[in-house]
Amino acid sequence: MNLALVGAGPGDPDLLTVRALRLIQQADVIVHDALVGTGVLDLAKPGTELIDVGKRPGRPVAQDAINDLLIELAATDRNIVRLKGGDPYVFGRGGEEAEALHGASIPFEVVPGVTSAFTAPLAIGVPVTHRGLAASVTVVTGHRRHGEPEPDWSAIAALVRSGGTVVVMMGVAQRSTIADALLAAGLDASTPVAISTSATLPHASSARCTLDSLGAATVKPPSVLVIGAVAAMDLRG
Amino acid sequence: MNLALVGAGPGDPDLLTVRALRLIQQADVIVHDALVGTGVLDLAKPGTELIDVGKRPGRPVAQDAINDLLIELAATDRNIVRLKGGDPYVFGRGGEEAEALHGASIPFEVVPGVTSAFTAPLAIGVPVTHRGLAASVTVVTGHRRHGEPEPDWSAIAALVRSGGTVVVMMGVAQRSTIADALLAAGLDASTPVAISTSATLPHASSARCTLDSLGAATVKPPSVLVIGAVAAMDLRG
Repeated sequence: MNLALVGAGPGDPDLLTVRALRLIQQADVIVHDALVGTGVLDLAKPGTELIDVGKRPGRPVAQDAINDLLIELAATDRNIVRLKGGDPYVFGRGGEEAEALHGASIPFEVVPGVTSAFTAPLAIGVPVTHRGLAASVTVVTGHRRHGEPEPDWSAIAALVRSGGTVVVMMGVAQRSTIADALLAAGLDASTPVAISTSATLPHASSARCTLDSLGAATVKPPSVLVIGAVAAMDLRG
Repeated sequence: MNLALVGAGPGDPDLLTVRALRLIQQADVIVHDALVGTGVLDLAKPGTELIDVGKRPGRPVAQDAINDLLIELAATDRNIVRLKGGDPYVFGRGGEEAEALHGASIPFEVVPGVTSAFTAPLAIGVPVTHRGLAASVTVVTGHRRHGEPEPDWSAIAALVRSGGTVVVMMGVAQRSTIADALLAAGLDASTPVAISTSATLPHASSARCTLDSLGAATVKPPSVLVIGAVAAMDLRG
């Protein structure tokens, strides 16, 4: 048995790591999220069992059930790949799965992926750091479960004001609340916002607005929001 | 002529993207940084011209000179890869090179890489986000040039206090100053710190300490510092 928690990157199969590609090609079973694109899954060898545990809205698969599935699969002699969009440890809940495997004394490997947090901006010509414009980048998620604490939006606003970039993942539904929180914390209404939708996939799109118009902007998931001075840049070659 | 700004990832050639590997193998000339490992450069075909523009301490290559070199090379009919450690747009100054190419009307592609900011922690068993422990991750650099503004350490301390992770890249020389700034901003002396050195390379190492002992810790560059509750975790399988 080999078990690997693998980051699939932002969607484009060309942005898989060499290691991820090899593990996918050798896998007997792939347990994957909804955000892993079909182009990536097509790389598996014929006969590979594909198990979709994607947490789509309205059809949640409990994290505990995924952990249990991995532990159960690990009792077989198959090559198991747990495939997650982006990077397993960047809002991917990979840490919880690693903890469960660790607790069950099951050996595993973690393979990092190209994170959508930085690649979604890059795909629309926005560098998350840039000399003179952004000396820090903060990644938060707009999607929290019941009981999870709200990020400190005042502190995030202070970072943006001092020259920082904020990247909000899974922030489409909460964009109005997030914009209000940042405006209330004193960020300028004219603070640039860039929206990168389905980055690196064939149907990718983008939009630009300002913080005060973010709530009214038409945005479809999955989108990444970039807030800060760099969001006004477009370096596409 | 094809010109690509390519992220080489954290060092291990297996963590190149499939796209980066292909571009490296097809390159006629590779303009690379000091942080790009020999294992990655060994993948170039025989006869590829390798130009080291690494900004090593005491032997700086001016960014303008690198920009000019790329523009000059772009006038040839060769396949040019500008290869940068990690991701080109995460403290890689790729944005400045893209701006220069953009200004010179030279077409180019940007290929994201696996960022050391998240992979150096992963390599030592630290997830930068984790349920109940870290709802945000902020990446800063400890290495700034004259005239660059200091990040807002009070805001960063507030984020850590509210459940956030801070990743400091190139922070070895400034670790004492950074620790003092965070302590002065009210962070607990016992805040966990993890140090990941030469992540994913054969001679990688790690250390753990607390914020008040960071200044006295023995740390060699290149290291990534992780500050926050997740820095006490070790999920290595």
